[in-house]
Amino acid sequence: MSANPKDLLSRTATVDPESIQPFPNSRKVFVEGSRPDIRVPMREITQTDTVTGKRREENPFIRVYDTSGPYTDPAADIDIRRGLEPLRRKWIEERGDSECLADFNSEYGRARKRDAALASLRFAHVKKPRRAKSGANVTQMHYARQGVITPEMEFIAIRENLLREALAERRSEAYRDAGLLGQHPGQAFGARLPREITPEFVRDEVARGRAIIPANINHPESEPMIIGRNFLIKINANIGNSAVASSIEDEVEKMVWATRWGADTVMDLSTGRNIYETREWIIRNSPVPIGTVPIYQALEKVDGKAEELTWEIFRDTLIEQAEQGVDYFTIHAGVRLPYIPLTANRVTGIVSRGGSIMAKWCLAHHQESFLYTRFEEICEIMKAYDVAFSLGDGLRPGSIADANDEAQFAELKTLGELTKVAWKHDVQVMIEGPGHIPMQLIKENMDKELEDCFEAPFYTLGPLTTDIAPGYDHITSAIGAAMIGWYGCAMLCYVTPKEHLGLPNKKDVKDGIIAYKIAAHAADLAKGHPGAQIRDNALSKARFEFRWRDQFNLSLDPDTAREFHDETLPQEGAKLAHFCSMCGPHFCSMKITQEVRDYAKAKGIKENRAIEEGMEEKAREFKQQGAKIYRPA
Amino acid sequence: MSANPKDLLSRTATVDPESIQPFPNSRKVFVEGSRPDIRVPMREITQTDTVTGKRREENPFIRVYDTSGPYTDPAADIDIRRGLEPLRRKWIEERGDSECLADFNSEYGRARKRDAALASLRFAHVKKPRRAKSGANVTQMHYARQGVITPEMEFIAIRENLLREALAERRSEAYRDAGLLGQHPGQAFGARLPREITPEFVRDEVARGRAIIPANINHPESEPMIIGRNFLIKINANIGNSAVASSIEDEVEKMVWATRWGADTVMDLSTGRNIYETREWIIRNSPVPIGTVPIYQALEKVDGKAEELTWEIFRDTLIEQAEQGVDYFTIHAGVRLPYIPLTANRVTGIVSRGGSIMAKWCLAHHQESFLYTRFEEICEIMKAYDVAFSLGDGLRPGSIADANDEAQFAELKTLGELTKVAWKHDVQVMIEGPGHIPMQLIKENMDKELEDCFEAPFYTLGPLTTDIAPGYDHITSAIGAAMIGWYGCAMLCYVTPKEHLGLPNKKDVKDGIIAYKIAAHAADLAKGHPGAQIRDNALSKARFEFRWRDQFNLSLDPDTAREFHDETLPQEGAKLAHFCSMCGPHFCSMKITQEVRDYAKAKGIKENRAIEEGMEEKAREFKQQGAKIYRPA
Repeated sequence: MSANPKDLLSRTATVDPESIQPFPNSRKVFVEGSRPDIRVPMREITQTDTVTGKRREENPFIRVYDTSGPYTDPAADIDIRRGLEPLRRKWIEERGDSECLADFNSEYGRARKRDAALASLRFAHVKKPRRAKSGANVTQMHYARQGVITPEMEFIAIRENLLREALAERRSEAYRDAGLLGQHPGQAFGARLPREITPEFVRDEVARGRAIIPANINHPESEPMIIGRNFLIKINANIGNSAVASSIEDEVEKMVWATRWGADTVMDLSTGRNIYETREWIIRNSPVPIGTVPIYQALEKVDGKAEELTWEIFRDTLIEQAEQGVDYFTIHAGVRLPYIPLTANRVTGIVSRGGSIMAKWCLAHHQESFLYTRFEEICEIMKAYDVAFSLGDGLRPGSIADANDEAQFAELKTLGELTKVAWKHDVQVMIEGPGHIPMQLIKENMDKELEDCFEAPFYTLGPLTTDIAPGYDHITSAIGAAMIGWYGCAMLCYVTPKEHLGLPNKKDVKDGIIAYKIAAHAADLAKGHPGAQIRDNALSKARFEFRWRDQFNLSLDPDTAREFHDETLPQEGAKLAHFCSMCGPHFCSMKITQEVRDYAKAKGIKENRAIEEGMEEKAREFKQQGAKIYRPA
Repeated sequence: MSANPKDLLSRTATVDPESIQPFPNSRKVFVEGSRPDIRVPMREITQTDTVTGKRREENPFIRVYDTSGPYTDPAADIDIRRGLEPLRRKWIEERGDSECLADFNSEYGRARKRDAALASLRFAHVKKPRRAKSGANVTQMHYARQGVITPEMEFIAIRENLLREALAERRSEAYRDAGLLGQHPGQAFGARLPREITPEFVRDEVARGRAIIPANINHPESEPMIIGRNFLIKINANIGNSAVASSIEDEVEKMVWATRWGADTVMDLSTGRNIYETREWIIRNSPVPIGTVPIYQALEKVDGKAEELTWEIFRDTLIEQAEQGVDYFTIHAGVRLPYIPLTANRVTGIVSRGGSIMAKWCLAHHQESFLYTRFEEICEIMKAYDVAFSLGDGLRPGSIADANDEAQFAELKTLGELTKVAWKHDVQVMIEGPGHIPMQLIKENMDKELEDCFEAPFYTLGPLTTDIAPGYDHITSAIGAAMIGWYGCAMLCYVTPKEHLGLPNKKDVKDGIIAYKIAAHAADLAKGHPGAQIRDNALSKARFEFRWRDQFNLSLDPDTAREFHDETLPQEGAKLAHFCSMCGPHFCSMKITQEVRDYAKAKGIKENRAIEEGMEEKAREFKQQGAKIYRPA
């Protein structure tokens, strides 16, 4: 069943112009590190001045974390047929511990590359793969444990320091003047959130396994980022076609779109035709790490018959994908044969695709899973390319009813055991988590993960806090995601409104991402991440001062904020008006508050003092009246 | 500035047909109480059978709380020009403590009724108002404290017992067979959630002030409901026109639409023209209690000049609205003169409209607020009609920066003091809460309210957990709402996606409500509300068994669930297919899990046993091999 290539990729593959427009009043800035090729991108949002009568107060620019890569950089020349610049290539080469291979090691990869029928679908500039030299280990964890601070680590330190920048001596004055520095103390549940993120701190966290840097040496196009609970909480967006829907171009577009709105990593979960080619296009164009679930493709290779899977096919798939540049693999090595019966009486059995594939294999062969028995061999592959483990929760609960059950926690314990094995090889690990959990059980999940998996970063799907809202599971799960993020989860895998119902389109991808940016940011605030509140403060100040455009521009989604405003007040003048459609000019509480302040000022004395004096006067009056609270009518 | 009546109301005012369609596979049922006129409406969702090979398993119907009134009852004859049937009239009359007045007591009310220019806008069947006889007190709290169980209380007991019904002896068998009864233990933070809600329990909670029944004797059309933390968590939807947008018909339509999707109460926050007429239309057609903020209309009467407000104008407004049938009034009596200076250095000052109006008045007159000084007089009015207080949080934080500050908590303390005063009069009270609170400060807010306000029900707006997502504040706030609901909040005031940006349209109203139904239900689950998990279990079981239509029908929004599914798989057959568009037929994990179960069954022995035997066999093998975890490759 071969697809018509024309349906899958047009010859002039391009990105939708709306995906690469710079954000309003924003410019891409680069902060340089210790060497000129460490250039950390940030988005700088310029604000307008506050004008009160004749007084004009300058509002400082706000810098925000920027995952969108070159796509929002007007200076960049975007051509998805060519791919992004390999910004990390030099760093990788300099280390001298890897080599360029003459050909692909994966049999399947070689076959796909040679298949003339796929020429029209194939990414045109496929590079030869790179692999660790014999005996070498090219993982960021390995370097970290050797005491080496890589350019990736320095890049990350600068990137993560972004919010703290505004707190730093040299920048804080403008922020203090604008009243933006105030922040509530957080409750960090044991997370360490230093006042400054140094490259050494990054190195140390990676060395301890408390954070990972997904950075396959075959994906030099990606901008380094870190996943760990002592850093900003990250979010992942899933994309990928299935046997019944979508094309290569759609998926590249979704990836670009996802990073535009804030996806820190993207997982390509394609299960349809041409998975291999689709992945190549995605990786070559992705500024963020790409994750996959290799068992999906392995199953494709045996026509969907789980029982026909073999270690050899799986192994070749790992190498195939590692050589394309996948940064982390979900591997369901914790689905052990003894745990499968634990799911038999569940309301929703096994809902993880990878988990159910392996369960089927185990039962068909009456054997322990080859992912488990061959785990050390998998580690050998991972460390040759620096692919990180995302140890899959194949037995995660698929409903509230099945949350925190024996099967789930038995697997979690095994994931911890496997974490130790991976760490023995200096291979980076994060742990996947559920799924569906009612609110009162979320903390237990997080705590258990930290304990059983020795503080390896947790990466959860939601969790959904109720099952009754298909069509709105970005919301049911944003609640759980915000909470588990607060409790210590390092990365939140988004859920779109289409979850359980269909494949997400572009709108769904954006809705899922914004919901998860909200959850992650709410959690960063709750933890007390230094500087996290500056953006809230700036936006609220803009709102209070009727700087409508600044309010839109500072928001997670300026387009929607503006559209919603314009639905009732479309006139350009309304963006300068000191009222809005909710209350009209008379009733605006913000306007009245301003009048309250003005009133005090008009009395010619300092605002607070004026009110206090008034109060004292009143207090005297009250006393003279006998200090009764209620006067007779 | 008189509006063109034609713009505001068409002569043939009707409800949009989509607002009054019965829900799919649902029927309205009535559970009768101790007398035939206590008929408690519920929505009963019928499920299809589970078919596995030749075996056919019946799935029980699921009953859900139904706020939609007669609108979803095909047997009801809906005519918004006539209004709903006054189901409580007989109960009110029977008590013999109120009388029908010859005319309206409010001067303004009389004038509006006589104004010929308003004839075309006026609701045609205005009834004479009813008021307590001289010296009588007609509040549900008064009856409760006298030991009287009113028909309203019995109605509520049946309504609140709905979920527990399925747990009860006479119904539990079908639910147990279907595996729907399992429920996680909740964490109720001191809430009392008895296994059965009796009329006596309702009475007791109301008597103690821990719950309120908003039930103005002039709104006999409303179906009794209760707000208190030992009951199901309720949600409120705000509607209302402003000076710049909307018509009477739009607002009635929004009210009907809001109750369709689950609004337990509706607040009419109109601030535009013809507030009086709009309110009459809304109340006469509303099956749920209606709340208002009378100061908005009072301000309208003095042309928006807060300083010209007087106690007399406000008093007349209270009577005017009480005689129309408003069930609860937001009154910002806690905005005391001494607290106003506490807001001067806030990032967002005073953001409550009512709060800022009163602050302006206080400063203009250098006097304590008349809402505070005349509070006992207000109580006299409230108890003559049974209007409940919703003590407004005029100094609530309008940004994360201002959360839990001195101004907010000073006011809260005063609200507690006023609660005691109201209770002295047997007047029902709930307390309004914020607003914008980062997650780590939400619990403190809830706990403080319970302490300072002596467990009077808390009713919060959100709270929003971050300020940076205008356009998505239904989500930023659903996170906070779910959490505060879990911690003990009794009613959650919805926030729509338009919050801060514009007036909500019908879509926004629905989006806000669904987000809040999610928050309330997630919180009921977390508290361990008996039976709350049955709907989740039923939906998850339907999902797992590919009963697509049952999954849609059991969801909070069947229309959206079906639409999303149909976007990728529109064929009718796909609703019976054992796979979906996310994975396609090969990869469906749920299908594979079924195969796992079938496999075990095919071995001819009991499923679990089969697997256990297999395991024992494996265990022996493993031992023989030397019990190594990893086999050499």
